[in-house]
Amino acid sequence: MQKITILIHCKDQKGIIAAVTTFIAKVEGNITYIDQHVDVEQNVFFMRLECELTNPKTTIDGLKADFDQTIATDFGMSWNLYNQEQKPKMALFVSKYDHCLFDILGRYSAGELNVEIPVIISNHNDLRGVAERFNIPYHCVPFTKDNKEEGEAKQVELLKKYDINFIVLARYMQIITPNLISLYQNRIINIHHSFLPAFPGAKPYHSAFKRGVKIIGATSHYVTEELDEGPIIEQDIARVSHIHSVEDFIMKGRDLERIVLARAIKLHSERKTMVYSNKTVVFS
Amino acid sequence: MQKITILIHCKDQKGIIAAVTTFIAKVEGNITYIDQHVDVEQNVFFMRLECELTNPKTTIDGLKADFDQTIATDFGMSWNLYNQEQKPKMALFVSKYDHCLFDILGRYSAGELNVEIPVIISNHNDLRGVAERFNIPYHCVPFTKDNKEEGEAKQVELLKKYDINFIVLARYMQIITPNLISLYQNRIINIHHSFLPAFPGAKPYHSAFKRGVKIIGATSHYVTEELDEGPIIEQDIARVSHIHSVEDFIMKGRDLERIVLARAIKLHSERKTMVYSNKTVVFS
Amino acid sequence: MQKITILIHCKDQKGIIAAVTTFIAKVEGNITYIDQHVDVEQNVFFMRLECELTNPKTTIDGLKADFDQTIATDFGMSWNLYNQEQKPKMALFVSKYDHCLFDILGRYSAGELNVEIPVIISNHNDLRGVAERFNIPYHCVPFTKDNKEEGEAKQVELLKKYDINFIVLARYMQIITPNLISLYQNRIINIHHSFLPAFPGAKPYHSAFKRGVKIIGATSHYVTEELDEGPIIEQDIARVSHIHSVEDFIMKGRDLERIVLARAIKLHSERKTMVYSNKTVVFS
Amino acid sequence: MQKITILIHCKDQKGIIAAVTTFIAKVEGNITYIDQHVDVEQNVFFMRLECELTNPKTTIDGLKADFDQTIATDFGMSWNLYNQEQKPKMALFVSKYDHCLFDILGRYSAGELNVEIPVIISNHNDLRGVAERFNIPYHCVPFTKDNKEEGEAKQVELLKKYDINFIVLARYMQIITPNLISLYQNRIINIHHSFLPAFPGAKPYHSAFKRGVKIIGATSHYVTEELDEGPIIEQDIARVSHIHSVEDFIMKGRDLERIVLARAIKLHSERKTMVYSNKTVVFS
Repeated sequence: MQKITILIHCKDQKGIIAAVTTFIAKVEGNITYIDQHVDVEQNVFFMRLECELTNPKTTIDGLKADFDQTIATDFGMSWNLYNQEQKPKMALFVSKYDHCLFDILGRYSAGELNVEIPVIISNHNDLRGVAERFNIPYHCVPFTKDNKEEGEAKQVELLKKYDINFIVLARYMQIITPNLISLYQNRIINIHHSFLPAFPGAKPYHSAFKRGVKIIGATSHYVTEELDEGPIIEQDIARVSHIHSVEDFIMKGRDLERIVLARAIKLHSERKTMVYSNKTVVFS
Repeated sequence: MQKITILIHCKDQKGIIAAVTTFIAKVEGNITYIDQHVDVEQNVFFMRLECELTNPKTTIDGLKADFDQTIATDFGMSWNLYNQEQKPKMALFVSKYDHCLFDILGRYSAGELNVEIPVIISNHNDLRGVAERFNIPYHCVPFTKDNKEEGEAKQVELLKKYDINFIVLARYMQIITPNLISLYQNRIINIHHSFLPAFPGAKPYHSAFKRGVKIIGATSHYVTEELDEGPIIEQDIARVSHIHSVEDFIMKGRDLERIVLARAIKLHSERKTMVYSNKTVVFS
Repeated sequence: MQKITILIHCKDQKGIIAAVTTFIAKVEGNITYIDQHVDVEQNVFFMRLECELTNPKTTIDGLKADFDQTIATDFGMSWNLYNQEQKPKMALFVSKYDHCLFDILGRYSAGELNVEIPVIISNHNDLRGVAERFNIPYHCVPFTKDNKEEGEAKQVELLKKYDINFIVLARYMQIITPNLISLYQNRIINIHHSFLPAFPGAKPYHSAFKRGVKIIGATSHYVTEELDEGPIIEQDIARVSHIHSVEDFIMKGRDLERIVLARAIKLHSERKTMVYSNKTVVFS
Repeated sequence: MQKITILIHCKDQKGIIAAVTTFIAKVEGNITYIDQHVDVEQNVFFMRLECELTNPKTTIDGLKADFDQTIATDFGMSWNLYNQEQKPKMALFVSKYDHCLFDILGRYSAGELNVEIPVIISNHNDLRGVAERFNIPYHCVPFTKDNKEEGEAKQVELLKKYDINFIVLARYMQIITPNLISLYQNRIINIHHSFLPAFPGAKPYHSAFKRGVKIIGATSHYVTEELDEGPIIEQDIARVSHIHSVEDFIMKGRDLERIVLARAIKLHSERKTMVYSNKTVVFS
């Protein structure tokens, strides 16, 4: 039995839910999950559905065409319909920090993530050994300020070669170019090591220490052209006190980074996030 | 414009959501909130709706009759339909602890709670002064082991006199009798000062201290005949360590008790809770 | 038996702990609590001690003189020695929001706070009724931009009249003048309704909503001339999601504000905070 | 320069802190960390010290003898003195669950843990591949109810061969025998997948689901003969709601188990825990 996930957003109107659930009943779908949200301010409707297709004759392509020509048109919907069996392909971008990489690959090996990881891309060779340990192709694409475009072209080539659906920056210490961002809009996930919007940019733990905060945080967000300003997917925090040094902040922060990034990957890969007005709707 | 809240539960079946949303559209209701849940194990469907009735001719009584005779019958629903303007009437039961009482009355006075509090009932006179400060009638109904039934009869009389919809035990240190529980099924909220099911019964902070836990908790639940075994509405926790004495546990616990009980009152009074199989569905 | 609390800070040097504990032993003090901290970066030593004075002949004034002339001089200490029986006198400044006021007065009445509250000062008359309910003198000191100095002069007069040790701004919506800040340095506690340093200034919940954060916070800090930049005493957070409106943020925030401000008052009044380099050392 | 950590506990008496700090000064030690705790109920004093030995002539063995013969004798102390450069040797016991194993080995490889891991011991062969990936010797010691003693004898042999200081049960699904417990008293760390003392024993997530709790937890503790009754080192929790299935509890629990066990390993390996009266003092 095929299982699908549908994400919808459109102008809020009367009768959307009835129309969608009636459509699903008509195609002999069995709704196993449905959630919806209305952004009252902006008058936008969001919906996420999971269905089992009980009629073996139903094809997903046929369903898509049917949906597109009927209610998607009637209500002016933006929508996506996913076959749950098709795992999204995720590229990992790393630099030198290995803790998020170990964590993601450990989860991946333990079967926790609904993704395939066909490739790891880095601007350094440092983490090649980790990739090899987990039998994942590792490509080093070094570049400098002067040939950043060239480096990016190689990255894009690799992303195409491996048919990548979304990118995870696992403490990748480089700015992503506008071109790559536009190719993967709302599909590049970053982990920033602060409680955004506090402490954007470099050395947030040092800034947090200097400010004397009692709580530190980490934030995963989709990458946009404005640094650390993209739609937030997930955040979490940890308590600190005067007894903790900057090094303690960094060590505690590693756990936050791991957890928050892993949750964001899980949410994205299970198609539980939608982006609107530089915010996320997260159906969890 | 009238606003209503509908709570529904029934056997899970195809087409419920479509039927309900179509019904609401038919009576010119504008859905402002809808959420649903399916208990897959038990095959039960739960739904909560908020609507504005845009047709001024619609009466809530007429709507109820209509709903009852059509889809409620078709799907075999258990349901409630509330006029949002009618605040539920809440009785407070207290003994000698005043911290939850002060917290609830402070919130009530600050306009945070969607309730009326027509009466405070106690087995002691200690907190009469607090009630007077907030201008709420206070009835002392003392009783002993030997005349507990008599005491309960007086309580029930007061509950009827004040037309009480639900009862909150704000650290009321007495066991509620089966008779009163049956009169207010799933409408008596207790706050227990532990992370249930750990440490039921008396002196949970002392037991937690003895066990050397690193986290303490509080639990609000609907009262059933089994002590501290009723459906849990809300829980929260606080960290403790070896530096904390039993007295520290108790002091930290006061904050937990206040917050957890206040949240439970808020959820219940806004009709966001449903009970099934000794559990709660909380639409928050 | 008299009980005292000693707070010390000085340049870090060898032998401080041995000297202090030896001194206490010499005066027949029984140490019931001792904690210390070294800021390694700045080379500063902090210590907090609680003692019982077992010799009934010991006077606190004599002890102070003795301490001052011996080890305080030897080590170049800044220090304070408090008689635990003397509760600090706290003035509440409020404007129109009543939730923190109700919470503080509820805790005060329930005996949770180690303070006296001789006076509530406001720039409006709105909360006079709350003060009267708790039998606390309420002074309305209204002022405009044009006569702010005059208003402040009246405030200072009241603070002197009531012999106030520290001030709590319980959602007081006015900027404190440099003059008043200098009179009560590190003794004016504010509650800011965001997770500082995110969203300083006005309307932080609106900014948080617009940014799409997944966690909101509240921060209590000592007031300095730089708005919302003073030493942080305590912070806490609550989860939010796309389902929450700005109004929900504000409502959830009220609980954060209450709890965080109450904790800060407790820490300060029990002499558990020390300020250094625009940060706090909190011995909790 | 040598660095040492000292852990002390003894009957609470006047002058201990002064005596210890004076001793350290005498041997030209520079205290970089000191913390102490008094269990008032039981009248026991606990202390943890970190020192740099500034005199290159000082030997750790000499220091131990000196300490033992002077103040340790004077105050009747139980104590340990560790050379910080000597990392404790930790054996991992696993069965079939791999998530904690991946997490620990990832942290170990990333240099986060102050341990050596010379060996992984299992009653199954399933996780051999993971061990090989991280180049750690893996020994499969299978046994049945009937030859459990034989199995244990082999385990003890391996523990001796690898000179193991402490054991971590990373979701090891077997009961440890009293003999092994007595050999490694307060040196076997287990992770239990509930918020102890709630839900001890088998299938805690299923029990938590059935009870309808709103928060789940994980607990790391030292293993004693009473199942899940040993001294608690660390606990943490995660929120759940009616939307979560048992499978969701289990998945969320994996993160809790990883984090809580990792923290316990870190605390134990950095000699920050002391056990007394079936509780822990954790100097963190």
